[in-house]
Amino acid sequence: MSSTNNKIVIIGGVAGGASAAARARRLSEDAEIVMFERGPFVSFANCGLPYHVGGEIEQRSKLILQTPQSFNNRFNVDVRVQHEVIAIHRSDKQVRVKDLATGKEFLESYDALVYSPGAAPIVPPIAGIDNPLTFTLRNIPDMDRIIEQIDSRELKQVAVIGGGFIGLEMMEAFVHRGIKTTLVEALPQVMNSVDREMAGIVHQEIRSKGVDLKLNTKLTQISHNPAQQTLTLSLNDNESLDVDLLIMAIGVRPEVGLARDAGLEIGEFGGVLVNSQMQTNDPVIYAVGDAVQTKDLITGEQTLVPLAGPANRQGRIAADNILGHEAHYQATQATAICKVFDFAVGSTGKNEKQLKQLEIDYEKVFVHAASHAGYYPGAEIVSLKVLFEKSSGKLLGAQAVAKDGVDKRIDVLAVAIRAGMTIDELEHLELSYAPPYGSAKDLVNLAGFVGTNIIKGLVAPVHFDQMDAPADNQLILDVRTPNELKNTGCIEGAINIPVDELRQRASELPKDKEILVYCQVGLRGHVAYRMLTNLGYQAKNLIGGYRSYRLAKA
Amino acid sequence: MSSTNNKIVIIGGVAGGASAAARARRLSEDAEIVMFERGPFVSFANCGLPYHVGGEIEQRSKLILQTPQSFNNRFNVDVRVQHEVIAIHRSDKQVRVKDLATGKEFLESYDALVYSPGAAPIVPPIAGIDNPLTFTLRNIPDMDRIIEQIDSRELKQVAVIGGGFIGLEMMEAFVHRGIKTTLVEALPQVMNSVDREMAGIVHQEIRSKGVDLKLNTKLTQISHNPAQQTLTLSLNDNESLDVDLLIMAIGVRPEVGLARDAGLEIGEFGGVLVNSQMQTNDPVIYAVGDAVQTKDLITGEQTLVPLAGPANRQGRIAADNILGHEAHYQATQATAICKVFDFAVGSTGKNEKQLKQLEIDYEKVFVHAASHAGYYPGAEIVSLKVLFEKSSGKLLGAQAVAKDGVDKRIDVLAVAIRAGMTIDELEHLELSYAPPYGSAKDLVNLAGFVGTNIIKGLVAPVHFDQMDAPADNQLILDVRTPNELKNTGCIEGAINIPVDELRQRASELPKDKEILVYCQVGLRGHVAYRMLTNLGYQAKNLIGGYRSYRLAKA
Repeated sequence: MSSTNNKIVIIGGVAGGASAAARARRLSEDAEIVMFERGPFVSFANCGLPYHVGGEIEQRSKLILQTPQSFNNRFNVDVRVQHEVIAIHRSDKQVRVKDLATGKEFLESYDALVYSPGAAPIVPPIAGIDNPLTFTLRNIPDMDRIIEQIDSRELKQVAVIGGGFIGLEMMEAFVHRGIKTTLVEALPQVMNSVDREMAGIVHQEIRSKGVDLKLNTKLTQISHNPAQQTLTLSLNDNESLDVDLLIMAIGVRPEVGLARDAGLEIGEFGGVLVNSQMQTNDPVIYAVGDAVQTKDLITGEQTLVPLAGPANRQGRIAADNILGHEAHYQATQATAICKVFDFAVGSTGKNEKQLKQLEIDYEKVFVHAASHAGYYPGAEIVSLKVLFEKSSGKLLGAQAVAKDGVDKRIDVLAVAIRAGMTIDELEHLELSYAPPYGSAKDLVNLAGFVGTNIIKGLVAPVHFDQMDAPADNQLILDVRTPNELKNTGCIEGAINIPVDELRQRASELPKDKEILVYCQVGLRGHVAYRMLTNLGYQAKNLIGGYRSYRLAKA
Repeated sequence: MSSTNNKIVIIGGVAGGASAAARARRLSEDAEIVMFERGPFVSFANCGLPYHVGGEIEQRSKLILQTPQSFNNRFNVDVRVQHEVIAIHRSDKQVRVKDLATGKEFLESYDALVYSPGAAPIVPPIAGIDNPLTFTLRNIPDMDRIIEQIDSRELKQVAVIGGGFIGLEMMEAFVHRGIKTTLVEALPQVMNSVDREMAGIVHQEIRSKGVDLKLNTKLTQISHNPAQQTLTLSLNDNESLDVDLLIMAIGVRPEVGLARDAGLEIGEFGGVLVNSQMQTNDPVIYAVGDAVQTKDLITGEQTLVPLAGPANRQGRIAADNILGHEAHYQATQATAICKVFDFAVGSTGKNEKQLKQLEIDYEKVFVHAASHAGYYPGAEIVSLKVLFEKSSGKLLGAQAVAKDGVDKRIDVLAVAIRAGMTIDELEHLELSYAPPYGSAKDLVNLAGFVGTNIIKGLVAPVHFDQMDAPADNQLILDVRTPNELKNTGCIEGAINIPVDELRQRASELPKDKEILVYCQVGLRGHVAYRMLTNLGYQAKNLIGGYRSYRLAKA
């Protein structure tokens, strides 16, 4: 260890900061390590907060992974909670600290500084938002305040603004508590990390649990009714809604005030700029976690992705570099997952909306198949979307929604994306198979089959958003059984010939029209498509079938 | 399509054969496709058979995925069940076929032949084995015969010989049926695809369910007692065992008789030799599935791995090549998983036993951590072993055992291995995290941390098999709490200083001895190891901790 880095000061004691402190101590017994945390807790389970509100995690104490004392016992780190760093004096290598309990301020010197304050909930400047019944959720005191509301008075109706991770988790928590909940989202979908048609499954699930889901809806004004202890929310659809409590969960913003004031460079997305060693433009100041921008794995450009996994790794990497063990952060791919009642929704890499903005020439596949062998109990349909570059086949992103098996497929694809694999390589992945766990041809393999067929020209794809207004020279063919059409409906104007009759009845179809074939999920459609093409018809197959088509409208 | 391949004959109508037939039809409407299957069923769920015996899969009909009629309706394939191909006449491009219903024989010509007969259960030449109470399980008639035994008479005690996939699944099936079961395995462990210490967890689980598990035990002789409808099994430990029924499940052998008779080349492991296009030495004869050898992904050498996933892919690849769409099989890595009561045991790549035989210079890490955030309900400890090449860090294999999350970790590592990743890259994998699904530092990341620490010299590893006979200059230090030692025992001769007291009490330890540190799983041991090393002590840390040590003896 270089003796010039003998004193390490850490701003923020949760994911990134605590990881940095623990790693630093493991690397050096004689470093002096001081960790300032503005709140009353260090190293708490911030991702678990909504689940304690909802009651799944019964004991509050389970969320407190370390105390200042236990952390000090284990790692000999001087942990000071309720101490807020209020300024960084770079020229003197000092921070100014305020003891929030006493109000006293003091200076603390550093040889190396780790900046890890996290990101703060965004509270938009809506008229009336400053009221005692509006809450955000970031830490344990926030959680305690919300639970206090639930426990101390009868909440009949609450609203959650924002359908991202925290908004969805809080929505679920209130439903678990038996409280009528409205979820308000300004966009046409929740979970903006996935594309609209994948979010359709989530919309169905949310509504099926009795939540009033308002998409394309903005909160415009709040009136506080102190006598009733309620808020009247005005929405941009001219409706209003009376609620007993309001959660603002529209997103988070990196906490960069201190860094900016100290002249550290801030990037275009509002996060602190760092190199791959997590160094800011001041080489003795490192920044990690939700407050920093990182390199995007897919584009190589800057990105801002506040997630716990990267924060933990970055803290470790900062400590390595401070103590002379060169280490580099390897770019962020935004792998994320969220539980929404019985479903999981996960994603990794870029979604289609982002690829459009980036003007990347992509193709996509959808597969809907069982999470494990369909004949073994408990299998659930997984809906998987995989995006890849048209020219090279390079994987760009993946999304999955299901009651089972989402995390596995997203993780498999996260590794494939990180390894730079192409869509055809998915075909060859050898994944674990026994009937309780998978299928001989896993969903990920199937995505490879479909994608490779597209690349090889063995299928001409058509997508769900191209089916509603067929051209005059197009004809829509539904190859499912009549019973399926009766049960689920069909695409307007489709004619029906079941795939197993198609070989005999192909002559009923015109050769001068393009036939847009579809089935339920795309598999029988592909068989029919191949048959028709081999028989000299012009055809396309609806990738993902009627299921993708319908989900886009859900 | 080349017109010389217009008639495709397929021998065997299950995984590989059925995949080849379906793909061939999708590629060509005018190919003539004939599929001969010796048994009464095609495309049945052979991996599901034990679960119908056990009752988890209630309906037998769920195992029959296609009938000859349904397969013909969909794919226009001439499916002939109960037709056995008894000779391949290569010079005439004909097969001789026996109709098992009538006994009649006939010749069928082919332009291309797909050889997919599978592998047969090995029945060793043990005295007395030819009796009516000894069964193997390969297909639906085999399953029906076993169920008929269970249903028609009271089975009080059965024995299963062989602790591989089918043996374990049949053991579980009998236990589910309430039948006392003995499992006899000649090796020191079940599930030879994992290493001994990982199998220890499986041994515990098997015994906890009341199965009499006899390791290192061979069946030497069988006596049939027709009056009692029992068998007396003689074992090489001089014990004997009376059973009502015996299952032989010691393994399978590729069915290569027909191929050998026809002069097709057979490899050193007894499977048909094929190139990456699945072609035998006769370029119009393709072979796929359990009957063939393939290239091993890790070694590049030949291997014999009978698994459903590869069989399906190979069938598809054979059809592609027959019909002019060049495709190559991408080597086998032996990814496999087995359910053993409440546990899953999975593996991919090479195990340690194989690496020793191959004389590859490897290192290994063990991690034992929660399948998802420990504070969220339902988390289970996953035991993970990862093997990598010492010089390069290249991943060579992985094994996992747990009640939850095994398939996901094995699949993640299967992709990492296939991508040629190194152990340090595991550290950087960005996997999906929310408390119900994972951890901010997933097990796979942890394996990367430990492995990278070893490679960087930040930890000197010691393994479970080096702890029982410490040298004179070694001292064993248990850094767990006294309560843990009381509850679980400790390694003989260990002294106990809890990690959180070690910094104060380090002076109690000698500087002239090598301290072998351990904790429960290796994490606190690492903290203690780093502390001691940084304080100038000589030390090593037990990778995987006391848990790995104990499992090796279970």
